[in-house]
Amino acid sequence: MTPRIVEVRRNILKHNDELARRLRTQFQEAGTLVVNVVSSPGSGKTALLERTLTQLRQSCRPAALVGDLATDNDAARLARSGAPVRQITTGTLCHLEAHMIETAIAEWNLSEIDVLFIENVGNLVCPSSWDLGEALRVVLMAVTEGEDKPLKYPTIFNSADLAMLTKIDLAQAVEFDKRAAETNVHSVRPGMPILEISTKNGEGFDDWLNLLTAHTYAHT
Amino acid sequence: MTPRIVEVRRNILKHNDELARRLRTQFQEAGTLVVNVVSSPGSGKTALLERTLTQLRQSCRPAALVGDLATDNDAARLARSGAPVRQITTGTLCHLEAHMIETAIAEWNLSEIDVLFIENVGNLVCPSSWDLGEALRVVLMAVTEGEDKPLKYPTIFNSADLAMLTKIDLAQAVEFDKRAAETNVHSVRPGMPILEISTKNGEGFDDWLNLLTAHTYAHT
Repeated sequence: MTPRIVEVRRNILKHNDELARRLRTQFQEAGTLVVNVVSSPGSGKTALLERTLTQLRQSCRPAALVGDLATDNDAARLARSGAPVRQITTGTLCHLEAHMIETAIAEWNLSEIDVLFIENVGNLVCPSSWDLGEALRVVLMAVTEGEDKPLKYPTIFNSADLAMLTKIDLAQAVEFDKRAAETNVHSVRPGMPILEISTKNGEGFDDWLNLLTAHTYAHT
Repeated sequence: MTPRIVEVRRNILKHNDELARRLRTQFQEAGTLVVNVVSSPGSGKTALLERTLTQLRQSCRPAALVGDLATDNDAARLARSGAPVRQITTGTLCHLEAHMIETAIAEWNLSEIDVLFIENVGNLVCPSSWDLGEALRVVLMAVTEGEDKPLKYPTIFNSADLAMLTKIDLAQAVEFDKRAAETNVHSVRPGMPILEISTKNGEGFDDWLNLLTAHTYAHT
């Protein structure tokens, strides 16, 4: 039975990759920077994006897509920023796929969006294999989760462009070993930039916004 | 393409369920209580089991299987308790399946094991559909992850027998709303018992060990 599902899965992934490539071209032509945000459940994706959207709206035109199994709570939270936001409900599916992105943006005029965030389903395994046509993949890791996550979930860290240590304000309370975490990130993905951030007290936000702005097409 | 993979997936799940049923009978006949522990990455499964195995060894014969994508760090940690421990490395697979359990226990004499813990892959989505033949499914939710997880990952909470609020010592630091969390758990799984626990300071451990002891077959 195994060979059959492996083959079917390979075809689906190939189909996804082709569509993701087309989406990537479409985003580049429209000048839309697409950022795919992945992490465990509860690492702070929504809180990060809530603050990011609100602050970015002062200098550019951000938007967001939000993947969730069951609720649209996160989309409602993000929409309060005033930015365009759409929910993608995945049911029992553990990740977003390129065709869901294609459908979700169908009614949007991409040339009016400078940065499009995609908040993936909270999961450190499945989203790693699914290209969504993004320019940047950002993996969040809350200090409350421990330092070992890159070693235990290497594929998603290896496929990311930027790692963020979130909830950094709690680092001392949970005795987080920053040096060990960085060593683990770099053993899986040598040289990947690592940002330390706290959505609560704003630490690291300037670096994050500067990094995003530097990557936007409007800036170049 | 979708109908084909759905059909393949359904067959695999059916096959898993049949094997899980056989395993469940085998565990009952041997008098082995099997506990499947599921949660996000970093919710504290390994730390919980480390302390649990050490304390349980004073009164009964526990053992553990540990599922991980890539490392055997967790198995090494648990083995320090002195209890029999085996690692199951899943590669890129986001959950454990019944046939992996069957293989992993092949060389063990179940009649010498009173409680067998299965630490699943850190994932709040995929493990929910895979019966491992367990008697108890325990879902962990760290207070650092926020109160909304049951609403966003309903299937895994709905399929569990017990919820544990872990890292409860951090509740105040992260302004965790216990009442809201309990409401959310019970909206998905009415009446499910909820334990509050801290592996760090031992809070809630007596209740947890008493609950386990009450469920063991040796006890009845």
